Amino acid sequence: MVKLIALYRMPADVEAFEQHYTHIHIPLVEKIPGIRKTEWTRFLASPQGAAPYYMMYEMYFDSKESYQAAMKSEENKIAGQDLLSFAKDIVTLMVAETYEDEIRR
Amino acid sequence: MVKLIALYRMPADVEAFEQHYTHIHIPLVEKIPGIRKTEWTRFLASPQGAAPYYMMYEMYFDSKESYQAAMKSEENKIAGQDLLSFAKDIVTLMVAETYEDEIRR
Repeated sequence: MVKLIALYRMPADVEAFEQHYTHIHIPLVEKIPGIRKTEWTRFLASPQGAAPYYMMYEMYFDSKESYQAAMKSEENKIAGQDLLSFAKDIVTLMVAETYEDEIRR
Repeated sequence: MVKLIALYRMPADVEAFEQHYTHIHIPLVEKIPGIRKTEWTRFLASPQGAAPYYMMYEMYFDSKESYQAAMKSEENKIAGQDLLSFAKDIVTLMVAETYEDEIRR
């Protein structure tokens, strides 16, 4: 699968960030076509010390083609503009190919 | 679920890194008890420019308890020592709680 990853550093105002993220941003993201699965990650700590990121949100697509179609959609344009409005300075976006492996023992 | 995330920056010698990672490190990691699922991510690019990381490897556990038991295992100690031997300067480890959401349209 292909996934779009948003890594967030610690917001200056955590409460305002959480409010906007949960009530405005996620509903906009969920309208983007072609997203098969999302995974929301809250960092607890790092074995090396404080985690360098606050949270991560991953959006999974079936293929590069469906990812590219999603990026061109009007819904993505709106979600992207919203992202820049509240998280421009703390977000890192990356695109990746991803491979899952269920481990059975 | 709880996951342990290893984020890798670009290795100085990609080929040597890949050889060690694939043939030595992953077989050691797969012996750690309690891992339910792994996900291996290769970054392609960032919509913001070059991706700040080379790859990511995630290990999923059922609970904080099984994660903590895994961290105390002999298998984890061996895999951890191996990690430091070839990737000490480029790896960032983080622990997180994670929530998946299947999107059905």
